[in-house]
Amino acid sequence: MKDITIVGAGLIGSLLAIYLAKRGYTVEVFERNCDLREVTPKRGRSINITLCDRGLKALDGAGVGQIVRNISVPVYGRLIHQENQQLEYQPYGNNQEALCSVSRNELNRVLLDYAQNNFPINFHFNEECIGLDLSSTTITFKNSITGNILHRQANRIIGADGAYSAVRQRLQQRSRFDYSQHYAAHANKELLIPASAQGAWTLKKNVLHIWPRGQHMLISFPNVDGSITCTLHLPFEGESSFDSIKNKQDLQHLFVTMFPDAMQEMPELVQDYFTNPVIPMVTVCCSHWTFKDKIALIGDAAHAMWPSYGQGANSGFEDCAIFDQCVGEYRDNWIETFRAYEQQRRPNADAMGMLSEQHFVEIRDLVGNYEFQLRKKLERKINRLYPTRYIPLYSLIAFTQIPYVEALEIEKQQKQIVDELLKIKELEQRIDNPEIEDIIHKLMHSRNVELQKVSTNLLEFAR
Amino acid sequence: MKDITIVGAGLIGSLLAIYLAKRGYTVEVFERNCDLREVTPKRGRSINITLCDRGLKALDGAGVGQIVRNISVPVYGRLIHQENQQLEYQPYGNNQEALCSVSRNELNRVLLDYAQNNFPINFHFNEECIGLDLSSTTITFKNSITGNILHRQANRIIGADGAYSAVRQRLQQRSRFDYSQHYAAHANKELLIPASAQGAWTLKKNVLHIWPRGQHMLISFPNVDGSITCTLHLPFEGESSFDSIKNKQDLQHLFVTMFPDAMQEMPELVQDYFTNPVIPMVTVCCSHWTFKDKIALIGDAAHAMWPSYGQGANSGFEDCAIFDQCVGEYRDNWIETFRAYEQQRRPNADAMGMLSEQHFVEIRDLVGNYEFQLRKKLERKINRLYPTRYIPLYSLIAFTQIPYVEALEIEKQQKQIVDELLKIKELEQRIDNPEIEDIIHKLMHSRNVELQKVSTNLLEFAR
Repeated sequence: MKDITIVGAGLIGSLLAIYLAKRGYTVEVFERNCDLREVTPKRGRSINITLCDRGLKALDGAGVGQIVRNISVPVYGRLIHQENQQLEYQPYGNNQEALCSVSRNELNRVLLDYAQNNFPINFHFNEECIGLDLSSTTITFKNSITGNILHRQANRIIGADGAYSAVRQRLQQRSRFDYSQHYAAHANKELLIPASAQGAWTLKKNVLHIWPRGQHMLISFPNVDGSITCTLHLPFEGESSFDSIKNKQDLQHLFVTMFPDAMQEMPELVQDYFTNPVIPMVTVCCSHWTFKDKIALIGDAAHAMWPSYGQGANSGFEDCAIFDQCVGEYRDNWIETFRAYEQQRRPNADAMGMLSEQHFVEIRDLVGNYEFQLRKKLERKINRLYPTRYIPLYSLIAFTQIPYVEALEIEKQQKQIVDELLKIKELEQRIDNPEIEDIIHKLMHSRNVELQKVSTNLLEFAR
Repeated sequence: MKDITIVGAGLIGSLLAIYLAKRGYTVEVFERNCDLREVTPKRGRSINITLCDRGLKALDGAGVGQIVRNISVPVYGRLIHQENQQLEYQPYGNNQEALCSVSRNELNRVLLDYAQNNFPINFHFNEECIGLDLSSTTITFKNSITGNILHRQANRIIGADGAYSAVRQRLQQRSRFDYSQHYAAHANKELLIPASAQGAWTLKKNVLHIWPRGQHMLISFPNVDGSITCTLHLPFEGESSFDSIKNKQDLQHLFVTMFPDAMQEMPELVQDYFTNPVIPMVTVCCSHWTFKDKIALIGDAAHAMWPSYGQGANSGFEDCAIFDQCVGEYRDNWIETFRAYEQQRRPNADAMGMLSEQHFVEIRDLVGNYEFQLRKKLERKINRLYPTRYIPLYSLIAFTQIPYVEALEIEKQQKQIVDELLKIKELEQRIDNPEIEDIIHKLMHSRNVELQKVSTNLLEFAR
């Protein structure tokens, strides 16, 4: 009864394996791909992760947080490259809050090493899940090298096998399984800005560079080795799309027009572009995540989200930490463990999935927009005056562990204050005048009741 | 190039086969079940269809409308059985508008006979689609009797294989296929009120009887042979649910409490209840319905909806008529045919799917509700005064062929008028006073501009 089968040895499957092994369970992990530590990483599929508090705390809980920080680069804000070539810096917070930029492959390697070096976890690579019989909890794997078929009668199966989860596909065939998958009209592609000859970053480091251009966008993430991973967002179809860019000239035209400064640092642009795959963005929502006390889904398998808010891996890691808490609380009562886990996580993951879709439009269209920037300035200002009673949504998501749903509730209240302030004429010129501060105090005071509740929450979570 | 493979010989597959054969195409239809004309119909799976204008017009277009009317019973309204045993009659319209109640099995038989007797259509039964290779348009069937496997390289495949469509499942595995399935927390079960010894209806005929009881509901549909098919709606779980009713006593308690008059006419209630399956209700939305000029989905395979608005089969039949129009317009240019078909039908089907979910709550909770009834009365009154300029939503859906999306737009305008009227104090007592008519005239006049547009549409479609 103490053995658990995990499908997927990606970020989430690896971390969950560590948590469960720490609890004394016998953990077997089956992964369809080869062991990524044994091959040269495939270029173009390792788009960077930005770890925030949620992810880091979950890694800390498994004892691997510091090791991950060591291979990460802290980033303190966004540097917006405007169309007119001007730069606008937007810090993530008022207190040097930072995200940790880390390569997905490197992070996965570190987790696998940590799991294997410290626990008796068995990893089986090249094993693709091709069947799952729900009545007997028998899972079938096909080895992609030997062709061998393995039928495994498992006590308990956790599907951590990503957005296109095979485990979830079997659950989906049951009646009453609610499910949705929604693709963006945009996709992304990985590009690289290599380190300088001295191994240094060629763009300002410790920030995410963003080139927002409406339907098109470029974002850069620093790596520890001095290189910078970029993601290019384009529509699938239409003008200047993945579909329309057919050759070197088309590509160069796009970059010269939209991202000339980035292009200068991309000697391999053409090769990267025409080699690397187009990666779609999909939101997955489903219910239920669990089947009896036998099967559960976690991470992208349960709730894939667009990468725009940087919460995909973070929310999956947080799933692992909460799952572990539930295991601790209901020890070996798996019906209750699964129930509590799903009850805590599903509404939050669904909310974050929706927010990620909204935020994609925000960063693409609005980051460079005047009102958007003014709003951000106001939020930072109110937060400086009320550091524990007014925390901008982005900070609630990235720098607290307040459940996503509660963060959105808090933001509803907060937004009303900024909306009020934005009605003030010539606000930008007057923003640092004492009169504006007075109005902020009054507004915060008049909303005291609502914010009282918020602030109790915030005080508990704020750093 | 003139051959078309249809998957599914249910209502929609059969009608589409007729339309396409009339156009001169060679049509082969593959159905997973046996030929329902060769077996005694399975009880409990034939929940009745209520055909409205959309469905009937589409059947007329294929030449089979009159044959279907001959096996149908017209129903002119709902007879609500209140909890206090009082009856409340709600006509569907002011002009004897009627739905046609018909058994699903009988309707399917008639369509199959008509297809086979009039056209060289090949029907292949017991052939389950078990594979579909998109690149070569090769579809694989397994014969459920012989076990034979058939690989068919098809020019064009139309999936008319229902809510759990195998064709759609293959499309779903492609990237960028948006998909959602959403189950109700309620399900239904078929029950029967047999004809009297004289072959007559034992409940008032030519109406749908409805017993709305909040979480529980019974609806009855008359058949030509004097029997009446009922559907019992219960929650899956909780108090008085499909889950909680374990034995004869539980069942009788439910019926004695909620549906005592219906129960008197159900001598086989216990046997029916414990024999017939629980049928879930699912809404399916997906995009795209078509793949190149090779594959298309139609009917429930493209857009399953809860049966609450009675639009499942009607919208599927309407799909067939529109599909046929597109074939006529773009003859053999299948890229254009598919594009035009999907463009016309998908937004409408998605809107109808949402409306069906909303309407389920309405009929279950509201049909017996005071404000709801007053609203219906007002709508009928305004419609009598402005028969071509104010048509209640239900009539727009059931008794016109205005696209669903437009019907909903029109209703938005109309609803504001009823909302205004409902603010009048003691409205019910005064509803037939001339002063109320004056207010209606004023409101209609003041909204002249918006309604002008509406009325142009309505004049075109109103009967």
